[in-house]
Order: sequence, then structure tokens, then C-alpha cells
Amino acid sequence: MDTFAFHAPTPDLFFLQDGNVYVRLKFPKSLNVTSAWIRTEPDNEQFYSAMEQYSTEDEWQIWQGTLKLDTAHDVTIYAFKFLVDGVQAWLSEGGITPYFPERDIHFRYVPSYQAASWVWSQIFYQIFPDRFYDGDLNNNVKDGEYLYQGSRVIAKKWNELPNRKQGQLEFYGGDLEGIRQKLLYLQNLGVTALYLNPIFTSPSNHKYDTVNYHNVDPHFGTNETLQQLCADLKQNNMRLILDAVVNHTSELHPWFDYHNELGAYRSKEAKTRGFYTFLENEQYVSFYDVATMPILNFANEEVQHLVYKGRDAILRTWLRPPYSIDGWRFDVVHMLGERGGATNNATHVRGFRQALREENPQAYMLGEHFFEATKWLQGDQEDGAMNYFGFTLPLREFLSGKDNRKHPVAIDAKHLDYLWQRARSRLPFPIQLSQFNLLGSHDVSRIRTALNNNLLHLELAVTALFTYIGVPCIYYGDEVGLEGADDPDCRRTFPWGESEWNQDLLAHYKKLITLRKTSNALQEGGFLSLYAEGNVYAYARILKNQSIITVLNRGKETKVTLPVWKLGNYKTFTSLFDESRLEVKNGHLEVPVGEGSSVVLLS
Amino acid sequence: MDTFAFHAPTPDLFFLQDGNVYVRLKFPKSLNVTSAWIRTEPDNEQFYSAMEQYSTEDEWQIWQGTLKLDTAHDVTIYAFKFLVDGVQAWLSEGGITPYFPERDIHFRYVPSYQAASWVWSQIFYQIFPDRFYDGDLNNNVKDGEYLYQGSRVIAKKWNELPNRKQGQLEFYGGDLEGIRQKLLYLQNLGVTALYLNPIFTSPSNHKYDTVNYHNVDPHFGTNETLQQLCADLKQNNMRLILDAVVNHTSELHPWFDYHNELGAYRSKEAKTRGFYTFLENEQYVSFYDVATMPILNFANEEVQHLVYKGRDAILRTWLRPPYSIDGWRFDVVHMLGERGGATNNATHVRGFRQALREENPQAYMLGEHFFEATKWLQGDQEDGAMNYFGFTLPLREFLSGKDNRKHPVAIDAKHLDYLWQRARSRLPFPIQLSQFNLLGSHDVSRIRTALNNNLLHLELAVTALFTYIGVPCIYYGDEVGLEGADDPDCRRTFPWGESEWNQDLLAHYKKLITLRKTSNALQEGGFLSLYAEGNVYAYARILKNQSIITVLNRGKETKVTLPVWKLGNYKTFTSLFDESRLEVKNGHLEVPVGEGSSVVLLS
Repeated sequence: MDTFAFHAPTPDLFFLQDGNVYVRLKFPKSLNVTSAWIRTEPDNEQFYSAMEQYSTEDEWQIWQGTLKLDTAHDVTIYAFKFLVDGVQAWLSEGGITPYFPERDIHFRYVPSYQAASWVWSQIFYQIFPDRFYDGDLNNNVKDGEYLYQGSRVIAKKWNELPNRKQGQLEFYGGDLEGIRQKLLYLQNLGVTALYLNPIFTSPSNHKYDTVNYHNVDPHFGTNETLQQLCADLKQNNMRLILDAVVNHTSELHPWFDYHNELGAYRSKEAKTRGFYTFLENEQYVSFYDVATMPILNFANEEVQHLVYKGRDAILRTWLRPPYSIDGWRFDVVHMLGERGGATNNATHVRGFRQALREENPQAYMLGEHFFEATKWLQGDQEDGAMNYFGFTLPLREFLSGKDNRKHPVAIDAKHLDYLWQRARSRLPFPIQLSQFNLLGSHDVSRIRTALNNNLLHLELAVTALFTYIGVPCIYYGDEVGLEGADDPDCRRTFPWGESEWNQDLLAHYKKLITLRKTSNALQEGGFLSLYAEGNVYAYARILKNQSIITVLNRGKETKVTLPVWKLGNYKTFTSLFDESRLEVKNGHLEVPVGEGSSVVLLS
Repeated sequence: MDTFAFHAPTPDLFFLQDGNVYVRLKFPKSLNVTSAWIRTEPDNEQFYSAMEQYSTEDEWQIWQGTLKLDTAHDVTIYAFKFLVDGVQAWLSEGGITPYFPERDIHFRYVPSYQAASWVWSQIFYQIFPDRFYDGDLNNNVKDGEYLYQGSRVIAKKWNELPNRKQGQLEFYGGDLEGIRQKLLYLQNLGVTALYLNPIFTSPSNHKYDTVNYHNVDPHFGTNETLQQLCADLKQNNMRLILDAVVNHTSELHPWFDYHNELGAYRSKEAKTRGFYTFLENEQYVSFYDVATMPILNFANEEVQHLVYKGRDAILRTWLRPPYSIDGWRFDVVHMLGERGGATNNATHVRGFRQALREENPQAYMLGEHFFEATKWLQGDQEDGAMNYFGFTLPLREFLSGKDNRKHPVAIDAKHLDYLWQRARSRLPFPIQLSQFNLLGSHDVSRIRTALNNNLLHLELAVTALFTYIGVPCIYYGDEVGLEGADDPDCRRTFPWGESEWNQDLLAHYKKLITLRKTSNALQEGGFLSLYAEGNVYAYARILKNQSIITVLNRGKETKVTLPVWKLGNYKTFTSLFDESRLEVKNGHLEVPVGEGSSVVLLS
């Protein structure tokens, strides 16, 4: 038998009692394990806690030990060493290795970290408000109503496509009232939480250039509309997070006031001059050098006060009644800092966390990160990241053969396994569960389009979204098969004519949403890779005696054999999609898989 | 042809000019490379600098770009993306991957880091002074002279073996005068630098429990003896580093003064009470709970002052004339900190660095670390670590099949390659060159004994020591074949009777020392893995047009074929040991290797 051991810090295998932290490790009963230790590094020195065989149940032998905490650091790292037939092996988040695993992939426990655990059971839905539904025709931007970046804004008809050449000038009329009116649709879909792109006053359709952080944009409604939306959501037991865009403001924000002599731009004596970073010759530091988005300088104490420290700071007020939003998604959070750059980023992001938690100890702090977000996800800063790095991009690359810059990329299931694992394994487990998984967003091509309209692969991706570790988020319209290339095409309006919907896809979404909402293993379970070769990747989510297996087959394979003995002593599994029953033989399960398709199996 | 690219931040491939940092990448001329970029993360956001084909020479196409620095962080990380036949590949310190490599293994550049570059060309020799040579018979510890840990000390005859049961009580009479008298021996061997275990006043034979940091222990000589030794070394162009033991003191140190009513232990009013960490019931925090070694509390400002901040701080004075030592090796540096633990360790270790560099900008700061030392080796703390984690332990495990706790471990050449790579790849290149490589020390069994007296494997290990990246250090006596199990057996006296020496082994050392001292590629070259399968591991050190290949064969293989086209357009290589000449055929080199032996090949 192969050397095998399983641990995840789920409540059955990791728990506090009488001031001790108990940690358990599961081995197959037939494995000849003679010793096992939990290795930690209190005060940077290694320490081995001996484990003892605690019990046997079914096919398992359970070993238990106590975790020695690292009091010098916020994060206690641990890994297991054990002897099988006298030879050592190790278990870390990187899996089983014959040698001591590197520190980066040890299990991580953060005693001081309090997860926003409500997010684990949510089905999120991202809405780009101008494009979801026009509930109030009276507040629409009128054709030519004002200038934006020197050109007249354009009012578009709902079903017109965005125009690449004038994307930033087009308005469709979607608003908060529209979201209110479509709540029933979202509930029927199974959605339990909304993430809205920015809604505060701003001249753009995306509203990432804020003019007033304390008012809903008049074209989206009023603060009262938001209040009503919040009340409706609460009544339906739904949650809401908003987009915090505090790295930069609009050039039209009164603090900067490009067109007025009172603001920082025109007056060196302005009280807000230090809010921004001015260079020589009236130059200033702006987001990606776009002059309309000057970057805030967090070295300035008044900026700190207004954004997060002060009693009525931006980040605080919306967390309070009558809105009581449930968290913030932070735009380009990695870039913000002092004097126009990311200097002391961590200091301010920690300050954000403190502010949020003071207002609501369960506020969800979500960061936007396109790349590796490990350092923001260690318990002192964010609860989760938009998981492009650890979920979305590897999956899209595996299925489409192209990266986000459209360059061909040659990765197979083994690589996918590694890419997901390396991201996941660097995070404390409650944060793995809180990662914000998505297939697409307003910033990338829609998943359907990224997959070249391959509808089989599309369903496969949806299966992964709802079964992978982390919280699933649907980008509005993806569930009915909306297409869209890169921005602005990925921001098309929602097609409310049901004849345009892909009903098979929608049914696939609903089936997986139902499963996700009823499965503790998917919401809070551990993760185990079962198979990763060529075109086929299979993994399990595990909680206590419940296991859910997912098989992703991007290619022409027709079956795969899985070592389900690693999950326990199951006799059969049932397929979610066709309800067929599969029998385990000698610890292995032969699973028929359709070409380019996915399978979900329930224990 | 396989996708291949090479980069190391050696002066030919990484250089500063006109305020820019230029970075070069080498591809085989026949590879169809259409684009290449240097990816960095200034202000935490990704940035791609396009590279251009700069020149072709021999079999290479050289691409060049400029590195965009990360001004928000001390360390700029970078990796290369390039398209070969239209498909992307990446190069990082982890090698070539089809996908974006994780941040941990990107190349690292630290503009503010100034290496102690003199160490790169050194051959270090570690001496445990009591056991090397007794140059002054008058200062020897006398049998029963005093009590240590409650027992009378024992004077031993030079050739007696240490006794495990009373190891801490035994004294052999070695001293600084002895080292002076044996300098000619060391020079003949090729040694250029000494690392001495502690020499300051202390009642133990190992002197890791200091009583006076300002005086040489009287049994080792006087401060004048040290001054003479330093003068002799200087005259011979040799270097010296000493052991800084500032995590803890002896219980007999006047600050603590266990036996006297004026010290911290007896008097709560003592000025030095805050130097240590007292618990309830007269308990105090001590090193590994050994009561004779109370731990210093670096939260105390006077401790900071006396150890590193003050004008005449311990770490400063010995760096000044008349001693002018060249650096310090810091004992258990990872453990020290505030209130008995490692809290704020980095703050104080950075303070140590500042103190050393203020006294001598080229002082070598070496840390003792048994495990991964990545976080101390990022340019702000240490120049190098005792490289147990990244060199010694993997090599010993590969050859002996046992780890340091004597547990069997099943690793092959692929694992060895990975274990060395993962440690190396997390460090800036100048620090890779400054790592302190060793085969054994006073803290582990001697290499000969660890390898079960397998003399072939012993020579193989020596070959690795002098050809791997980092600075080699010989543990006194290893070169003549001294045996020794764990402490205290690994601290046997040096056998000065030449009849006891293994002359073949000594000749092997001398051949490799000579090569190392004359080879810039070994001292400052980049590193490339060439082969790692089963029992055979081969790697090259590369600088400009010079390449040195090392083959390590722990098993019964008789030959290995190496892809030397990755090194350039060489026609032949010459073997260091038997001077045979091998011809390259179609870019490959077939190398005969003896069973359990090593081969070194020069281009």
C-alpha cells in the first residue's frame, strides 16, 4: 500500500479543548505506522510533539497530538513527520513527501484570526450595476448629458453591444432599483449574497473614479434606494458587499478638484494638497498614469482619518445602519500606500481590517488581486482574495490553452493540480475556505468567450466553481450563457428575454448551487487531489464521513480510475448529474467520464 | 530541441549602467524565440519589460532588457516570460516552467545589499579550540581544577576519546597558541580563513556559556595571544571570524551571578534584573531549559546597548584594531529576541547587521540555522547561514539514507536536486554565493561517521563541498579522515601523528581546494542542474565562457550522458581527477563514473 495520511484543520481533526490545541492525523488502518510527530517552530526553533494512536474507526487509524504554538509570531506553522515501515514521510499542505517540506507549504494556524465564517455557505453574484437591470427609467444618463474625459457621454439601448472605441462613454441605465426588482430572479437561481461594482457618485459607467464616497450615484438611485435594497436583502436573508475604491479618486473629487481653484490640483495651499502626490511641473501620480484618477497618499494622516481611522470614515459608515453592508471588496488593494506607491501597504491594509472589524466582527474583507496574494492572506489583513491566481487563471489556461494575455500556454492536469495547490497551500485553512472564486468578472473576458464557446468546457468550469475550495461567485449573466470578450465587451447588459438563455447551462448552475448550499463538505471541507494526468483532474472535498468527488476531463478520455480508499471505506458513490450508482472495487472506483465533461460523485 | 534558457545575476548577465539595471538571458541560437519579457512587481503590481535580442555569440542568442525596480520594497523579484514557437515558457530560480512560477522562487535583487564579497574566494576551516592543538601547556585546565555543573572538571590526554557520559567536563588543552603554531599546516592545506568556536571566558570546554565577553578565556590564552594570532593571520593574508554567543550567558556571568548576591538572580533590585526573563518562583527562561544558560532579554535597552548598539558594544569591539576580526558567526541567532523568546528577532538581528557594517562595511555576518533560513537571508540581516538546510543535511541524507535523527529517509537524486534548489532559489544571488557550506561541525556527527565510513561516499561529499554554490568550510580533522559520532564524539582531538592520516583523502581535499581557489566559476558562477535521476546527480557552475561540471554517483552506475549543449558550444571537457579528455557529441557528453564516486569536468 502507498504511504498515505490525511489532515485538514476541520473540526474533527483540529480542535481546542482545555486550553490545548489538538491535532489529528488519519492513516489507513493497514499502514504500519510506528511513530508520528507534529513539527512546529516555536520561537523559530523546531519542536516535535509526539502523537499517539488515539482510536481506530472504519478503515482508519487516528493519531492525535497537541500543537505547540509559536508565541513569537501570529502564524504557527506545522507539518507531520511519521515512520511507515520504519521509513520517514511527511505531510504538509503540499501533500506527502519523503523529505522535510519547505516552510512555505506547512499547515498554518493563526490563533488570533477570526474568519467571516458566514461567507463559507454563500452563493455570491457579482453585478455591474449599469448593465444588470434598469429599474428606474427616470434616473438614466441622457445622451450627451455631460462630458467624460473630454467627450459627450452616450445613452445606449439595452440590447446594444458595448463599443470598444467608446466603451468608457456608454451608459445603459441599470440601477439599484433594477437590482431590487430582480431579487426574485436571483433567489430562484439560488444566490444568497451580492457583490456590487462601485455605486458611489462618479462620472464613469464603472464608477472606479469616485467623486463622493458618501452618496450613491444619482444615476443608480439615492442613498434611500440603497437603504431599501439593503432592507429587502435582509428580509430575504441575503448579504451584500460593496466595492471600496480608495487607492485613487476621480480628478473631479473636491479634494483634487481639477476644474476648480480650491482643490489640491490648482492650489498648493489647499488643505488637501497632501492627499495626493505631486511631482515637478504640475505632474501628479495617478492610477496607471491615467490623469483622471489621482492616487491617494496614505502617508497623509487626514487621508487615513477620512478613509478608515476616523469615527465616520468611509469604510466605517456603510457598515452601520441603516445600510449595514456585510463587507468590502477592495479595488487594487495591493497597490495602495504612501507617496503614490505601495510603501507601507500592509500598515494601511491592517488598519482597514481593524476598522471593519470594529464596526462588525464578521465583516468580510475581500481584496482584488490578479497575482499571488499570499502575503495579504495570513490573517492580519484580508479574509479572501478575488481568486484569479489560485483558481480562475489556472482553470482558464487548462481549458483554453491561453493565458490572460492570449499567449498560448501548455499546461496539463498535473500542472493545474500544482497551480491550484501552490496557491491554496500557502494560506491558513479558514482563509482557503473564504477565498472568492470566480470564472470571470468585469475585468476579463467572460468565461464562455474565454473558452471559445465550448459549452462542454463551460459546464466543466461551472462544476469546478461550485466544488473547489472557497466561495463561489457568479458573474451576472454567465449563468444564462452571456458572451463577451475583454472589457468593455464583458460588460454587456443582462439579456432578460428568456428565449436568449441557455437553459441547459442554467439548469447545470442550479443543480450545482443546490448541492453547494446543502453540502457541508463543499462549504467547509478539506481538499484532496485524487488524480492528475493529461486531460483529467479529480479531487475530493472531505468533511468527517462525507466525501464529494469532482472529475474534470477536458479531453477525449472516457473513464478514469480513482483511488477512493484514500477517502475511507465507501462501497458506492452516486453521480450528481445522471444519478447512476458506481461500485468501489478493491478501494478503487472506475468512473465513466464524457468527453470534455465533468462528473460529481457523492458518497 | 527542448526549450532552454539561462540566467544568473553574474556580471555578464546582470549589470548596472547609467542608472539602469540591465538583465540578459541566453537562449540556444537554434531556438525560435519570438518575444521575451522581464516580469517584476513594482508597487505590488505586475510590470513587463520587453526584452530585445541583443547579440549572438557562439551558440547563443542573448536577449536584454531593463529591470524595473520595486521602490516600495527592499527586494525586487523578477522572472522571465518568453515565447518559443509561439508557446510561453518561464524562467525563474526554480528553472523553466510552462506556467508563471510562484513568487517564492523568482530571482531576487536587493539594490541596498552590499555583499561581504571577500568570502566568496575563501577556504574556511572550523576549529573547536580545545581540541585542535595544545600550543601552551601552561594554560591547560588541571584535573579537578573547578566544578562545572556540580562536577569536577577532568583533564584528558590528547589522544583519549571523549566520553559520552562526562563530555561536558573534559578538557584537552587546545588553545590559541596552538592554532598559531599550526598555521603553516593550514596554509599548506590551502585554508585561507578560520572560524573559531567561542573563545571568550567560560567555564565549559565549548564556551557557549560566556562569563566575560571582553576577555579570551585564560585556558585558551590572553587577549594578547588573540592579538598575535590576528597579526599572524593578517601577515599571511588570512581571515578570521569568531563565534558570537549573545542569545544567553552563563549563569556565572556577573549580570546574572548565580552564586553572588549582587546579580539578577539573587536580587530583584539588581540593575541587570531586566537583562533576563524571570518567571514565578525564582524560575527564569534559559536555553533549552538548561539552567546554566539564562537567556538574554533584548527588550532591555541596556542589553541592546551592551551587545550591539553602544560605542563599545561586544559585537563592535572585536571588529576594531588590534583584532579587526572579519565577521561573526551568530550562535542560535533565530532564537534570540525579547522576554525569553524570539519576539522581534528581526529587529535585533538587523541591529546586529547595522553595528557590524558600521565597524566594517565588509564584515561577514553568518547565522547558525539548522532549518530554513530564508527570512534571515534577504539582504537586511545575514550574509550567509551555516548551510545545514540547503546543503549539508540533504547531501548526508542522499548518501547515508538517514536523517539527522537517525530515521531512515528515502530520497534519490531528483529529491536532492529539489532540496538544494528550493533552499538556494529563495535567496538573492550574492547571498547564495555567501552561504557557509559544511559537511559537519561540532553539533553533528562527523561526515565520515555519518557516511558509515564509506570512503568513496566521503570523497564524493568533499567534491560537492568545493563545487556547490556557496563558501566551503572544512571541520578540523575531516581532511585527514577523523571519525566521530554525535557530540561529544565529533569533538575529538586532531590526530597530529601523520601515520593516522588518510593520505588519499587529504590529496582529494587538496586537489579540490586548489581548483576552488583558482576557479572564478566555482567562487562566483551561476548554477545549473544537468541531470538528476536515481543515484546520479550532475550540475554545472557557470561564469561567462567557463563551465565546471560535477557528477555525484552514489550507486553502481558506470556512466551518465549529460546535455552539455546547455552550457555552450564546448568540444571537449577534461576530468580533474584522472585528466582524461572527453569529447562532446551532438551536444551531449558521455561521462564514465566510478561506483559511488564523483567526477569533476573542466571546460
